[in-house]
Amino acid sequence: IVDNPVCIKDLEPIAKRKISSSAWSYYSTGAMDEETMRNNVDSFSRIRIRPRVLRDVSNIDTTVTLFGHTYASPVGISPTAMMKLCHADGEAGVARAVAGLNQAQTLSTFTTMSLEDVAKAARSVPDYPFKSAARIPNLWFQLYIVEDRHKAEQLVRRADAAGYSALVVTVDTPQLGRRLHTIREPFKLPTDMTHANFEGNSDSLAAINTAVDASVNWNRDISWLRSITKLPIIVKGILTAEDAELAVQAGVDAIGVSNHGGRQLDSVPSSIEALPEIARAVKGRVPIILDGGVRKGTDVFKALALGATYVCVGRPSLYALAYDGEEGVRKMLGFLNEELRLAMTLAGATKVKDINRNFIRAETEYSRL
Amino acid sequence: IVDNPVCIKDLEPIAKRKISSSAWSYYSTGAMDEETMRNNVDSFSRIRIRPRVLRDVSNIDTTVTLFGHTYASPVGISPTAMMKLCHADGEAGVARAVAGLNQAQTLSTFTTMSLEDVAKAARSVPDYPFKSAARIPNLWFQLYIVEDRHKAEQLVRRADAAGYSALVVTVDTPQLGRRLHTIREPFKLPTDMTHANFEGNSDSLAAINTAVDASVNWNRDISWLRSITKLPIIVKGILTAEDAELAVQAGVDAIGVSNHGGRQLDSVPSSIEALPEIARAVKGRVPIILDGGVRKGTDVFKALALGATYVCVGRPSLYALAYDGEEGVRKMLGFLNEELRLAMTLAGATKVKDINRNFIRAETEYSRL
Amino acid sequence: IVDNPVCIKDLEPIAKRKISSSAWSYYSTGAMDEETMRNNVDSFSRIRIRPRVLRDVSNIDTTVTLFGHTYASPVGISPTAMMKLCHADGEAGVARAVAGLNQAQTLSTFTTMSLEDVAKAARSVPDYPFKSAARIPNLWFQLYIVEDRHKAEQLVRRADAAGYSALVVTVDTPQLGRRLHTIREPFKLPTDMTHANFEGNSDSLAAINTAVDASVNWNRDISWLRSITKLPIIVKGILTAEDAELAVQAGVDAIGVSNHGGRQLDSVPSSIEALPEIARAVKGRVPIILDGGVRKGTDVFKALALGATYVCVGRPSLYALAYDGEEGVRKMLGFLNEELRLAMTLAGATKVKDINRNFIRAETEYSRL
Amino acid sequence: IVDNPVCIKDLEPIAKRKISSSAWSYYSTGAMDEETMRNNVDSFSRIRIRPRVLRDVSNIDTTVTLFGHTYASPVGISPTAMMKLCHADGEAGVARAVAGLNQAQTLSTFTTMSLEDVAKAARSVPDYPFKSAARIPNLWFQLYIVEDRHKAEQLVRRADAAGYSALVVTVDTPQLGRRLHTIREPFKLPTDMTHANFEGNSDSLAAINTAVDASVNWNRDISWLRSITKLPIIVKGILTAEDAELAVQAGVDAIGVSNHGGRQLDSVPSSIEALPEIARAVKGRVPIILDGGVRKGTDVFKALALGATYVCVGRPSLYALAYDGEEGVRKMLGFLNEELRLAMTLAGATKVKDINRNFIRAETEYSRL
Ligand SMILES: Cc1cc2nc3c(=O)[nH]c(=O)nc-3n(C[C@H](O)[C@H](O)[C@H](O)COP(=O)(O)O)c2cc1C
Ligand SMILES: Cc1cc2nc3c(=O)[nH]c(=O)nc-3n(C[C@H](O)[C@H](O)[C@H](O)COP(=O)(O)O)c2cc1C
Ligand SMILES: Cc1cc2nc3c(=O)[nH]c(=O)nc-3n(C[C@H](O)[C@H](O)[C@H](O)COP(=O)(O)O)c2cc1C
Ligand SMILES: Cc1cc2nc3c(=O)[nH]c(=O)nc-3n(C[C@H](O)[C@H](O)[C@H](O)COP(=O)(O)O)c2cc1C
Repeated sequence: IVDNPVCIKDLEPIAKRKISSSAWSYYSTGAMDEETMRNNVDSFSRIRIRPRVLRDVSNIDTTVTLFGHTYASPVGISPTAMMKLCHADGEAGVARAVAGLNQAQTLSTFTTMSLEDVAKAARSVPDYPFKSAARIPNLWFQLYIVEDRHKAEQLVRRADAAGYSALVVTVDTPQLGRRLHTIREPFKLPTDMTHANFEGNSDSLAAINTAVDASVNWNRDISWLRSITKLPIIVKGILTAEDAELAVQAGVDAIGVSNHGGRQLDSVPSSIEALPEIARAVKGRVPIILDGGVRKGTDVFKALALGATYVCVGRPSLYALAYDGEEGVRKMLGFLNEELRLAMTLAGATKVKDINRNFIRAETEYSRL
Repeated sequence: IVDNPVCIKDLEPIAKRKISSSAWSYYSTGAMDEETMRNNVDSFSRIRIRPRVLRDVSNIDTTVTLFGHTYASPVGISPTAMMKLCHADGEAGVARAVAGLNQAQTLSTFTTMSLEDVAKAARSVPDYPFKSAARIPNLWFQLYIVEDRHKAEQLVRRADAAGYSALVVTVDTPQLGRRLHTIREPFKLPTDMTHANFEGNSDSLAAINTAVDASVNWNRDISWLRSITKLPIIVKGILTAEDAELAVQAGVDAIGVSNHGGRQLDSVPSSIEALPEIARAVKGRVPIILDGGVRKGTDVFKALALGATYVCVGRPSLYALAYDGEEGVRKMLGFLNEELRLAMTLAGATKVKDINRNFIRAETEYSRL
Repeated sequence: IVDNPVCIKDLEPIAKRKISSSAWSYYSTGAMDEETMRNNVDSFSRIRIRPRVLRDVSNIDTTVTLFGHTYASPVGISPTAMMKLCHADGEAGVARAVAGLNQAQTLSTFTTMSLEDVAKAARSVPDYPFKSAARIPNLWFQLYIVEDRHKAEQLVRRADAAGYSALVVTVDTPQLGRRLHTIREPFKLPTDMTHANFEGNSDSLAAINTAVDASVNWNRDISWLRSITKLPIIVKGILTAEDAELAVQAGVDAIGVSNHGGRQLDSVPSSIEALPEIARAVKGRVPIILDGGVRKGTDVFKALALGATYVCVGRPSLYALAYDGEEGVRKMLGFLNEELRLAMTLAGATKVKDINRNFIRAETEYSRL
Repeated sequence: IVDNPVCIKDLEPIAKRKISSSAWSYYSTGAMDEETMRNNVDSFSRIRIRPRVLRDVSNIDTTVTLFGHTYASPVGISPTAMMKLCHADGEAGVARAVAGLNQAQTLSTFTTMSLEDVAKAARSVPDYPFKSAARIPNLWFQLYIVEDRHKAEQLVRRADAAGYSALVVTVDTPQLGRRLHTIREPFKLPTDMTHANFEGNSDSLAAINTAVDASVNWNRDISWLRSITKLPIIVKGILTAEDAELAVQAGVDAIGVSNHGGRQLDSVPSSIEALPEIARAVKGRVPIILDGGVRKGTDVFKALALGATYVCVGRPSLYALAYDGEEGVRKMLGFLNEELRLAMTLAGATKVKDINRNFIRAETEYSRL
């Protein structure tokens, strides 16, 4: 265990020590045997970066433009539930860090601070350029389409009103995945916390689970969403070329390649395994956002090279928050940004747009001589 | 070691603690270095499920029709010998669990309760719809063709008379496999148990072994079997496309892809490795039943996607029985059924028939980018 | 550590306990990092046997005919040096075991008993059919072509005169391999033993090494050998298709696929890896004899399926000798013979000739689905 | 831990014991998770040598001609910084060992002895044939193009004047790689040592880092270098076919395939993985020099077979120096030379030029049967 973390991996043991064992088990767990969860990380290691040399790399530009806004880095934070379990700074702490760095955070449906309070936190950042703008480009809102469509619509309208700038609809959770640790040690929200986005306060995950609607489908629900909001819609949880095509045809604004951090169906492909077929299908018609197993700047680089436009981390933000609240999140994003910048410098890509398929080769190709 | 099992893997250490070390060694053992036994489990992990999203999955139907009967689930129990070594409930306990859930059990030739008693147990289940029907769809009988064909014929006729609804003829055992643990610690049936299907009571495996006829062959014996029974015949122990073709030509009613749980010839393919070439050869002419290494709902899903119609487990039923008798078996089948249902929900397949080859991709394909 | 070995693997720890640490280090060692030595064993595990069922396997015939003699089994013993280090029975004990079972042993150039004494031992076996025949089909003689061609010629003539029935010329040792353990703990023949085939008694391996002629080549030396003996000539140490072709063109009687048990050049292919390209090149023009890493009946089966006619073991004979002298060797060969017979029974091959390429598939092929 | 090393691997634990923990951490470390560093070594093991037999190998010639000079062996020493941290003999000790053996050393820009003193040391070797020649064929000079071009030019002119015979320009370090151990335990040059090639003595790596110019590029800087020196120019740090082509077009005299020992961008290909595509692109137009993970004579053989002309080691020279100064380096080079000679003997290649692509096959090819 290290006290002075120098990379994301270092954050894990620190977080484990700092939070309750039930919170740790809730956060670190994946579905069943956690094959997909492990594979999310491991399959990045089976990809090589082919570095180009003697290009002038004195100016590296990591900015990327998405939904009309130019972010400082192609790295953002995935929606994860109940951040106060990590640190009193909670979702607001993450929002302040992210807004201050001009990156993006997706707020989960299931937060311990209300979406309005989180928006307020972002706007409170000193010198924040969007203090009183209609939209906060650094905050996106994640939606589970619950059975009670009225409740779902309310959430969308509140997010819209509060200034969130994109809507992430999670489609890989018609039912909660089977997480054995959580089944063994059922998770309960501490009594001093609430699911702040809901009035009547459901206090168990089981309640959440039953709330999610398993009948959600391409035909009915995406057009319904489209009809109730003008925000860009990201469909999060796509792992096949076929669904990517359906998503484009349904008119979504971005595709979220994700397996929910290996927490839903164990044995699905890792995110980075799924990305190539999806990028081939999408052919640039909409941006692709990837999360799952990203832990290093080179992982970000690889995802970008294989077709992602934006790359997010889930657990690292939780562990960073546990480590040192808002400051910890800033540090964690700093690692990734710095490592990405270095990867671009050493690989000879000065702009994010330059990072293409030629920079990448599978380990198995090299093994053929 | 866990006390409250939440998946099949949890049952193993519990069973080990509960039964005699010689019974454990007899059950858990495989042939020689146990490469095939381990590979049975491991090769499932090298297959990925490609999940489809935004399909209405509010109604999942796991039923499957086989030999004219509609089972509640495509999961059944393989024939394994001498179940009383696990628990006093013995084969009857399994039969009650299986019949109650409307799944299928294949009774071994070598049982510690007579096939008639087991049939009676199944019919004793409260509200069992086949209490007095001619056939019990939930019980199949496994036959070793012993040298004394008269004995073999007797067994078939008794099973038929007792209401068994299918005949599983095991063809991978012209001689017992070389199981080193059993050679080191020879297994003896405890004196208070008998090979209940045989009058004169042979008390050692050696006796059994010499009884099996090594000259059994396609030409003579399958047509002989056909001539003495009208029951559907399943040939259990097929691992090649060539033999699958011969089986279809011999007029069998189903093909059992199996390597006897890795207990016969070590280094043969795992069942799931063998399945694709067999499915390609059979082209749907007869149903395929697979066992070997199935431990999770996703394993069942993968076998179905690759062409199996029905999927069975051997050791898990023994460990479940050891854990808690009939109730343990019910729990174990509950795990698999629930996990399969969840896999279908999260993969977007609402009916068993929907589970096809497109849901599956080999790890090695993903490793190519 | 087991006392009652049931397979070849069991012999290793027993032998280690029984012999001196310097003998153990000399025997068990391989060149450099021992990658090839380990791979010899491991690459057998990456090959699957495809078993055929419902063939009449009541009569299994493991005999094989080579150089005009019909051996009881396609398994023999490779030449290894100085067997008395293992057990007082020495080379003679192995010869008695092998002759009694009608299998084949190749005697090393560097023995602790003279080749004449070993021949006498073979003929001393009760009821041995070749007691006074000109040739002992169960004894082959291994030759290193030493610089002093006169010495080499003497050895060949003595082996011929003593009744040896084939000449194995080892071609992979123009210089001794780099075996780190032996360099660290230099091996010295105990003072009560001699290199019995040589008059003046060279007492160190270094002496042997300098004696071997590095200039031996296809053109000069194979025709020279041919000119001084009528015995069948086996060239031992071939690992490429190109050299197999040259060997056939040079008129040898058999090709020995071998990497000297991983003791010569580390990182050459394992024997079973090299076999397919050699079998393809040879196209049955001469028989192929393989050694290296064979430890189980299924290994023998795999080598036969990939084109070998005869399969030998080196270290297992040493460990067996250490375990229990002549009786130990008989037991070890018994394991292999019994396991091969069982593999043939369970795979559906009743004669050695039946074991062909269709029985075999690479693990990597199965991994493609 | 061994006291009497018999191979390069043995040197590592000895060195670790002998030098300060901060020097050890500086030397043994790689970038980030050290995947490339480990892979540099491991990917050699995935290549097999196909040995040819019965070729007259009584005369092995390991000489190789490069830049007009005939070296005794195709093995040399890569530039590494600050060798006095290992042993008082420092860079001069290495130079004496290398010159005495007629091999090649590349001196780093960042040395603890001035380049002039190192040249003097080489010339001081008894009977050294280039004692007073204009050029010392055994010494090459490595250059980092620092921002202050005047400083860089000075270094080149000094190296030229001192008799260095080639210029190695390192192109993979526009910025220092992220080495976590060094970040955790920042390295400081002991006060009794200096960066001897620089007047004003920068005492930290950070200083060095900022000095290197990130804007260096093909167009401007290679032609500039060409204009200020007549020495052969080697571009060190090429890992792609594309850059190899650019290098040839830029008129360099040799290509250095290297990933800086895995210290720059983690997850780039290992050197031996990158070599084949580069050799295919270069088509013999200029020689290729490879370093990274070379630890054995067979590694050298494999690199030569895949197209390298010269092969260097970095860390082994540091560990050898730590072990026993100049004498240790001589011993280490002796291991490699002897192992290479043995590999050539046992593979049947008598001259370095004979070592071609046919001697090599990928493990994955063998795994296909
Ligand atoms: C503890 C936890 C809670 C999560 N909660 C949500 C959630 O509420 N909504 C959602 O869409 N995804 C949720 N996810 C999935 C993440 O958005 C993201 O897909 C995943 O964490 C990415 O993988 P990584 O953790 O390896 O970076 C959660 C993940 C974790 C670990
Ligand atoms: C202890 C034990 C006894 C078995 N007895 C029989 C048997 O009597 N007849 C038979 O056809 N198969 C028998 N089998 C094989 C099983 O029917 C089945 O093929 C195998 O157990 C499936 O693999 P699994 O255990 O990995 O699920 C036995 C297996 C085990 C483990
Ligand atoms: C201790 C030892 C001594 C050996 N001596 C000889 C020898 O004198 N002549 C020879 O041709 N091969 C010799 N070999 C190689 C063997 O003939 C054979 O190729 C090798 O042992 C086969 O591999 P295995 O040990 O894995 O079965 C020796 C091998 C060992 C292990
Ligand atoms: C401690 C250390 C210092 C190094 N310093 C330099 C250097 O100053 N200049 C340079 O071009 N390469 C430098 N390198 C890289 C080496 O030249 C070489 O590419 C690498 O060490 C080869 O890998 P190996 O250590 O596995 O043999 C250094 C490497 C190490 C390990």
